[in-house]
Amino acid sequence: MNTIQTSSIQADEALPSWAEGDAKQSILDFVDAVTKEGDEFVPMAERIAVTDNDGTLWGEQPMYVQFVFVRDRVMALIPHNPEWRRKECFRAVLENDVETFVAAGDKGLLDILKEFGETTEEYAQAVMDWLTTARHPTTGLRYTEMVYQPMLELLKYLRTHGFTTYIISGGGIEFMRPWTESIYDIPPEQVVGSSVKTEFVDREGVPVLVRLPEVSFVDDGPGKPVGINQHIGRRPIAAFGNSDGDKEMLEWTTAGSGRRFGLLVHHTDGDREWDYDNGETTTDGVGELSPETLSEAGEKGWTVVDMKTDWTAVYPSGKG
Amino acid sequence: MNTIQTSSIQADEALPSWAEGDAKQSILDFVDAVTKEGDEFVPMAERIAVTDNDGTLWGEQPMYVQFVFVRDRVMALIPHNPEWRRKECFRAVLENDVETFVAAGDKGLLDILKEFGETTEEYAQAVMDWLTTARHPTTGLRYTEMVYQPMLELLKYLRTHGFTTYIISGGGIEFMRPWTESIYDIPPEQVVGSSVKTEFVDREGVPVLVRLPEVSFVDDGPGKPVGINQHIGRRPIAAFGNSDGDKEMLEWTTAGSGRRFGLLVHHTDGDREWDYDNGETTTDGVGELSPETLSEAGEKGWTVVDMKTDWTAVYPSGKG
Repeated sequence: MNTIQTSSIQADEALPSWAEGDAKQSILDFVDAVTKEGDEFVPMAERIAVTDNDGTLWGEQPMYVQFVFVRDRVMALIPHNPEWRRKECFRAVLENDVETFVAAGDKGLLDILKEFGETTEEYAQAVMDWLTTARHPTTGLRYTEMVYQPMLELLKYLRTHGFTTYIISGGGIEFMRPWTESIYDIPPEQVVGSSVKTEFVDREGVPVLVRLPEVSFVDDGPGKPVGINQHIGRRPIAAFGNSDGDKEMLEWTTAGSGRRFGLLVHHTDGDREWDYDNGETTTDGVGELSPETLSEAGEKGWTVVDMKTDWTAVYPSGKG
Repeated sequence: MNTIQTSSIQADEALPSWAEGDAKQSILDFVDAVTKEGDEFVPMAERIAVTDNDGTLWGEQPMYVQFVFVRDRVMALIPHNPEWRRKECFRAVLENDVETFVAAGDKGLLDILKEFGETTEEYAQAVMDWLTTARHPTTGLRYTEMVYQPMLELLKYLRTHGFTTYIISGGGIEFMRPWTESIYDIPPEQVVGSSVKTEFVDREGVPVLVRLPEVSFVDDGPGKPVGINQHIGRRPIAAFGNSDGDKEMLEWTTAGSGRRFGLLVHHTDGDREWDYDNGETTTDGVGELSPETLSEAGEKGWTVVDMKTDWTAVYPSGKG
């Protein structure tokens, strides 16, 4: 190790929720290498770090937060729309049938979206109204309180070293943008996600963008490098994820020339959080990390964070 | 006018190619209003300015630069692919038949794209190889020398006042990104344009993104506000264009609350540049500015730049 002493001290202060160990050291080594004069130096404009959201920056159990949002919206409106009960995707939502809902995929979400004829601004308001009141069924915390403190520290540490941090999520781009700036310090223009088509409409003299029940882009799996290229137009030098849906993003990022950094958050802590990507195939499809991807991480030198031992805290409040 | 004297002097120095007059004054007034403490102050993060490219930042006559690029690529390869001559879009390109080529729209371009099976990186290289050698048929200048000096000054003036400047072009996003940073000081992540779909492919162990002959997004007309929302996620406070394809972008931008600024470059200078959007409907569809849009500019208080009288220079070299 050739790390200068003062830098290590600053890093310790910047990453207080990371336990001493290989995971933390791999972060320090990488940032040190690309920010100091030398063979591996990277100019600031090219210091792009990308991160998944669900399961990487905040919790995703017992189901994706966006699905809970959709369910709560449907439940609030079902008394006025009893015919919804006859549609499979609605039934799955109302019965908390995550497996059917996930299996229905885009179609299920779009069938529901059809019932709302919202503008982008109305949708953003609905997201914020819900997030400020909804609470997680078992922790009782607000969902935005279930973000991972060590990852907040990592993102901030990178930004103080000249990185730009982007979210690259399979979740909806418009579901995230209203709150990512206040929670993660990541502004809307640095959020990439799945999207529906929108249409420019003149509504009684006022131009609005209306959300349509048609998929525009699925930012998951092999879609993540596509979304990165579309939005950023540069290949990142660091990528963080937690599931098979992040595999191609890490492959794309770490296949570039020069020093690269890949990181997977491994959910191993059933006491403080959840222990669900333990090498067995999950049945509900939420946040699956397969043995093959874990094995690829080993071959390619990606850092695998053992949540139980590498993180001294999980949530900012210290709960969990 | 309530402009403070020192600010006016700085502005004069910053916009030397703008003649004194209403157009220049409207820029100074707007920037002054949103950057000084007061009712119309806008925080830096929300100082988003968007600009069209073809006909707004650089020339577009006698045809869009990207079309010339496509034509030159086709002409270079036609000896090896004589069967291309039988396809209408190729014939139009080879015969400089702009009208047929524009009328064919996406289909024509996609038919040509099908013949190339390029990665995004190969395409970027082809763009750069071409731009460094190609010259405009009548001026003899390189295309990147035919950018508008006053607009370069405007973009820089905005950035020095805390704005972020984005290109929102009907042209190809991947045609622009390789050179916008060196020519306009606009990095790839601040370029939005039309795009084809790309696919993440493992090419003998190396992950690449391959360009597919399928339209992903058309960033023109009503597509411009959609592209802005998709990439930026905030509504701009200033928008610059030159043709009917920019109308909805200016409408969307200026319909927001608070102080807003819309600007149209009016091509009125047949001596130094071209005089083609003179209120008559053009026949080839390149850069048309209709009487209806000009009239809307008047009603909505958008600045209309008379290139002949408002600009003391056109190109950085002083030629033209």
